[in-house]
Order: sequence, then C-alpha cells, then structure tokens
Amino acid sequence: MTGLLTDLYEVRMAASYLRRGMTAPATFSLFARRLPRRRGFLVAAGLSDALAFLEQFRFDDDELAYLRTVVGLDEGALRALGGLRFTGDVWAVPEGRVVGADVPLLEVTAPIAQAQLVETGLLNVLTFATVVATKAARCRIAAGGADLIDFAFRRTHGVDAAMAVARASAIAGFAATSNVEAARRYGLRAAGTMAHSYVQAFGDERAAFRAFALDFPDRPVFLVDTYDTLAGVHHAVEVVDEVRPVGPVGIRLDSGDFDALARASRAILDAAGHSSARIIASGGLDEDSIATLVAGGAPINAYGVGTRMGVSRDAPSLDSAYKLVDYAGRPVLKLSPGKATLPGAKQVYRAASAGVPDVIALRGEPAPAGLRPILEPVMVGGVRLSPADPAAQVRAARERFEADLAWLPAAARRLDDPQPVTATPSAPLADLRDRLTAGLTPPPVPPL
Amino acid sequence: MTGLLTDLYEVRMAASYLRRGMTAPATFSLFARRLPRRRGFLVAAGLSDALAFLEQFRFDDDELAYLRTVVGLDEGALRALGGLRFTGDVWAVPEGRVVGADVPLLEVTAPIAQAQLVETGLLNVLTFATVVATKAARCRIAAGGADLIDFAFRRTHGVDAAMAVARASAIAGFAATSNVEAARRYGLRAAGTMAHSYVQAFGDERAAFRAFALDFPDRPVFLVDTYDTLAGVHHAVEVVDEVRPVGPVGIRLDSGDFDALARASRAILDAAGHSSARIIASGGLDEDSIATLVAGGAPINAYGVGTRMGVSRDAPSLDSAYKLVDYAGRPVLKLSPGKATLPGAKQVYRAASAGVPDVIALRGEPAPAGLRPILEPVMVGGVRLSPADPAAQVRAARERFEADLAWLPAAARRLDDPQPVTATPSAPLADLRDRLTAGLTPPPVPPL
Repeated sequence: MTGLLTDLYEVRMAASYLRRGMTAPATFSLFARRLPRRRGFLVAAGLSDALAFLEQFRFDDDELAYLRTVVGLDEGALRALGGLRFTGDVWAVPEGRVVGADVPLLEVTAPIAQAQLVETGLLNVLTFATVVATKAARCRIAAGGADLIDFAFRRTHGVDAAMAVARASAIAGFAATSNVEAARRYGLRAAGTMAHSYVQAFGDERAAFRAFALDFPDRPVFLVDTYDTLAGVHHAVEVVDEVRPVGPVGIRLDSGDFDALARASRAILDAAGHSSARIIASGGLDEDSIATLVAGGAPINAYGVGTRMGVSRDAPSLDSAYKLVDYAGRPVLKLSPGKATLPGAKQVYRAASAGVPDVIALRGEPAPAGLRPILEPVMVGGVRLSPADPAAQVRAARERFEADLAWLPAAARRLDDPQPVTATPSAPLADLRDRLTAGLTPPPVPPL
Repeated sequence: MTGLLTDLYEVRMAASYLRRGMTAPATFSLFARRLPRRRGFLVAAGLSDALAFLEQFRFDDDELAYLRTVVGLDEGALRALGGLRFTGDVWAVPEGRVVGADVPLLEVTAPIAQAQLVETGLLNVLTFATVVATKAARCRIAAGGADLIDFAFRRTHGVDAAMAVARASAIAGFAATSNVEAARRYGLRAAGTMAHSYVQAFGDERAAFRAFALDFPDRPVFLVDTYDTLAGVHHAVEVVDEVRPVGPVGIRLDSGDFDALARASRAILDAAGHSSARIIASGGLDEDSIATLVAGGAPINAYGVGTRMGVSRDAPSLDSAYKLVDYAGRPVLKLSPGKATLPGAKQVYRAASAGVPDVIALRGEPAPAGLRPILEPVMVGGVRLSPADPAAQVRAARERFEADLAWLPAAARRLDDPQPVTATPSAPLADLRDRLTAGLTPPPVPPL
C-alpha cells in the first residue's frame, strides 16, 4: 500500500494525463524556496527513504476499488494506474551534504503521471528529514566537544517522525539515541537509563540507585533530581562506592539551573574521587541553551536533546517545492508571485573554497572549470544505483556532513543571524529563464 | 513489531522491575503541564491510536535477540519481556473533548513494567494528535462559516503524521482532506483538483482547464495563478461556458493578495453569471491570516490549510508528561523544580456552565453534586471497551468537539491572548499532595 499516500489532485492529474496519452517525460525539481529564519544552511537528508518510497510505489486492488467508488475514476484510468510503477531517473544531493536555498535536493525525470503521483510522498519525506537534520546540526555546532543524545521520541509527530529524527540527528553528529527501534534499524548507539518513576517506585532514592547499579553495572547513570538534586548526587556517590559498578558511571540532571547544578555536582563527584563520572543534562534543551551552557563553561559532558530538536521547534517546516521544470523536452516555468521557478533539469557546481556561491546550471552545460558537481544519479529506470544499507548510509552521510561542516563559512554556521550560503544561476540558465518569461507562447492544444 | 518502539530507559527499568519481582500495579497519569502560548484550551485526540498501540504491544523474537546482543539483557529479563502483553486498565478523556492543563488525558493502571514500557508510545501518539487537533480548532474558530480543507500532507513530519493531521483536523471540523489514504481510512471527504504543473504541462492555461473540465465534470476547480491570476479567472469562465461541467465549479487562488484577488475574481465570476462558483484560497494560511481575511469580508468560500496547521507551526509540541502517581496502592509524587506532580489515580469533574474550573479529584472521591465526570474507562484488562471503528470514532469525536466548542467561554476561544480553561485540585487531593510533600518517608529497600 503506497499509491494512496498522495494528495487527491495528484491522482486526478495522473488520470487525466494517462487518459490523454500524455506520457512524455517530465522533470520535476525539489528544492527549498528560501531558508527558515536563523538558518544559514540546510543539511540534505531523507533520500534513502525517498528512494524506498519510489521503489515501492504502486496501487493495490483495494486502493483501485476505493478510487473507483469514491473518487469516481473510470475503468481506463484505473487500469492505467493499476499497472503503474515508478520507472524514472533520479538525481539528488547525497545525504549529509550542506546546501542553500534554490539548490535542487532531488530531480525526478519520468513519464509525467508517475512523476506527478510521487510529489506528495517525496516532499513529505525530504522536507522533514532535511528540517530535522538542519536543526540537529545547529545543536552539534552549539555543543562543541560535548556529546549529544537524541531524546525526542516521545514528542515527535508520530513514530515515523521519531525514526527520521534519530536518523537525521545521527547524520548531524549525535552520538546516541534513546529510540531503541531506530538504534536497531540504523545501527546507532542506544542510550538511556532511568526515569523519575523508577526512583518513585522504590520510594527511597538510594534503594533505587542501588538496584539499578546492581542490574546494569556496565554504564549506570543516576537520575538525581526526583526529590533534591544535590542530595541525589550524594546518594549516587554512596551507591557507586558501595556497589562499585564495572563500567563508567554518570549522573543526569533533568531540571533546575543546569549550570549551577552541574558545577555543584562536579564538585561533589570530584571530592568523592569520581572525577571520571560523567554529567548529563536533559530537559527543554536546544541549540541556544546548549550554547549558553558551553560558553559559560558548565562542566556537562553530554546533552540529551528532545522535543525542541525533534519538532524543530523554531522552524518546524521548510518552504520546499516540487516543480515541473521540463515536459516533453520543453523547459517550463511558472510566474506565480513569490513562487517563480527556474526551468530545465539542473546540475549544481561547487567550489572547494568556502564562501563562493554554488552555480545552478542546466544539466547539459559543460562543467565550469575547477568546480565539482553536487547532484549525483541515484536511481535509473526506477532502480536505485546503491543497495539500501541503512547503517552504511547513515555513516556515509555523517562523514559528508562532517566534511561540509568544516567547509562551511563561519558566518553561515552562526546560530544567530547567520549569513546563508547561496547559489546563483549560470548564464545559460538565467538566459533561458528570461527568454521563457518574456515569451510564454502557448503550444497547440493537445487532442482529447 | 512494537516492543522496541520505546526509549531504552523504559526497557532497562522494566527489566529491573521484572527481575526484582516488582509486579504490583502502578498508575501513570498523562497530562499537559501547561498550555502552549496562545492556547486557551486543548482538544483531546489520539486515543484510538493509543489504544491500538497498547493492544499490539509485544516483543517479537528479533527484538528480543537485539536486546540480548546489543543491550545486554539477561535471559531471565528476556523471557519475562517475551511473554509481556499489556493487560492493564485505561481511563481517558474521549477524543474531541476540550480540556486545560493538568487534566489527565489518560491514566494507565497496570503491572509497573507494562505501564512503564508503553510510556514513550502513549506520549508520542497523544501529544501530537492533541497538538494538531488544537491548532486545527483555532483554524475552525477563525474560519467562521467557510469550509476548511487539510492540505498538509506534503510537509507534515512523515506519513504517520499526515494521517494523524487529517484525522485530528476532521475532529476539529475540517470539511475535507487532500490526503487520499486518510480519507479512505477515516471515512473523510477527499478533495483536490490540479497543480500548477498540470497547467504547465499543457502550456496553454485554457487547454489545461478544458481538459480538466472534460475529465472531471463533477466538481472542477481551476487553479488560476500559474501565470496571471485574473487572466486565469477569465480563462476558467471561458472554459466553463464552453464545456458546461455538470457539477459546481470553483477557482483556487494559491498566491498573491488573497483579499484583493478574491474580490476581483468574485466580480469576474458574478459578471459572467457564475455567482455560485466557489473561491478557494490556499498557500501559507493559518488561523491568523484566515481570521484577517474573514474579518475583512474577503469573498472566500473555502480555505486550504496546509503546513502551518499540519506542523502546528507556532506551537509544534506540548509540554506533556506521563507520571507515576501510584505504586502498589501507595500514592507518589515528585518534587523536581517546575515539574511537581499530583499523586493518585484521578477523575475530573466538569460543570455544565462555562467558565467554572474543572475539579481534579482522586478517583475514589464521591462525585461533587451537579458535576459530570470527563474521564471514561476505555480499556479493561488490556481489552478496549469499544471496538475500533475509525469512521464512527471520528464522527463521535467531532460531535464532542462541536458541543465543547459551544460550551467554551469566549475568552478561552480567542485566538490572541486567550484566557485558558483551568482545573483545580479537590480538597482531598490537595490535602494528599501536601501531606506527601511534607512527609516523604522512604519505605524499606526491596530485596534483590
């Protein structure tokens, strides 16, 4: 079941195209029209899920029956939809790569009905993954040398979203996730120890810590703020001295003034001879509060980042678009106010040195000297060029992200008032756009 | 597969409880600690999916193998988890009901390991559905008599989220959704006609409109802003006059100044004798822009509301919590700064007249005279009390929402600076909280 995972208008348009024999190839370009506020770049993500969606796209019999009875599609359209698979070609920016507005994250070339039907699914998958990878990258920049752990599962927009958040944050350099299924699926490190309820169920904090240290001696982390935070730290020290867990120990602060509590906790731990014990902070954190704690020198080894990262609270979406740029070999554009598009299938070229705008070129243009292309062919004839290997893909994307983060100009990395990376059309692309805008001449009406 | 859809700490705590024979019933309460900014109420939603999650919760063999090798759980814990099902009782506020902060949306009573393991899933499902139903309700309030259509699919946080958005917005009074699968699953009306790409593929706007009117004569809506909006309206009129579709017709405005364009479009349509043609606006809308258009008298019959509703842009999450309130017959609370909880299993009582705070009482208290309880038993012994009937549940929830919307004080309904509905603890509950806070006496340490 994937065919109905689309907007109704896609189905109507596809049925109309099929009925009229409009099967010529169309190229659609998926890109961000602009960056959200406080974003100097985007981290491309979601491609692997997008390709899986394309591979699986089809209408099953129940779906066709629904379209027959409820949408009222005729038998010819239903037959055509029933046999439809995605057989197109896809070029895309690989995951983890850093890009700006207007750069195509993905371009699809396929018979127009196919390319149209997958619009909703592709936008859904790529927009959200890119939004969250970008938010997580900001946390990564803020955290400096401290570790980050994805704690977002409980408040993401559904279970799918939790998986995408764990994956996207791993691409952006998070060290672990609390999400067990995501850890399994993507080969990530799972992290997590105890909640307040555990302490409450025992009633006595020391009893709870003792039980936990005995049951999980490899890496116990004690949640110390259920009743009185610094008393909790003392209780953790007592229990560690008594039980002597085999692995490294830590405490977690989940409320209060993290800077003051981390310093006081560090002092207690150090005085008790536990200078290697780690301090983890969690609860309402985002890149801004992490940056403040880091700048103030709070002795925090790891940050658990949940809701605000997982819903990208300050920018929960992105003005992404999936626009027809070529049909039947004819480059096209639209002129809607504020939503004009660049025509034609594209390639984007990038300089090795930072601070130089990317060049958005027509795909057929010769490559400018010294620049490297950043879109790659990823699917040909509906078949992806690299096999799906979830863990390897996350690792490769993370390496790309690390390289691009080093490449990004400092002004684009800034959390506040960043200067976004930009892209400019090549001379041939700008010329084509201007000619089409000036001359929009209607072609003959296709026959019914 | 559902067992790994949880945070790792839930698994560790559950394993520890099971290992120690801590199988006494625990009650957890799920509630919002506070309302987001600009929210005067919440619309409870997501219960049906939450109950389905509880019914399906189990660890399969692959999941247990993962926990063995990667998390390092011992064989005793794995055996116990392998046989674990959710066998608890659930009380909840039914979907569509309007509530304030602190009111339990749901309470679970089950052996503590079970109740703990389902925390992440329950919070995930109920938080997001409630966030979006609430945002959609604000759009409903803003739109007055105009229809609303869910256009959010392409930018929700994943496909799950798109389904939840279509469902939650239907509960909050939306008339239709673009999401075909959600329409099928929940018995909603699917809506949608054409995109700019359809017009571009034909090149000539009239040719595209003509083809569409011939292919879908029952209810064609023409997207008029691909090149020049008012020229597009004239083209729509020409085509309607020529093709004479059997059903009602409409135009869709997707960019520009909606107020001015709607008035100009209305004048063109009326002058051409199409006074029954509908005008639909879409693109970047939310409750504020809709309220402005409605207040200004823009002649718009329906609003397509997408991204900003579907991600609840100004408040994409909710400070929800799932807190242990009773273990083994012993009411408990925590004292973490800003996160203190109310002890004990609860019932909430509501007055028929608006503006009276709800009363949060202990579940065993006698019902206050003249007030009605708003939590209902929905699952007993792991079995839900009403069969899952997706379409009927949405209809019932929508009726509850309509009734509660009429009941809500005007000050709580305001889009700006609303006065939130409130709830206060009963005297026995306040007394219990104060006694426990004062006297937190540690019970004896449970044996290993």
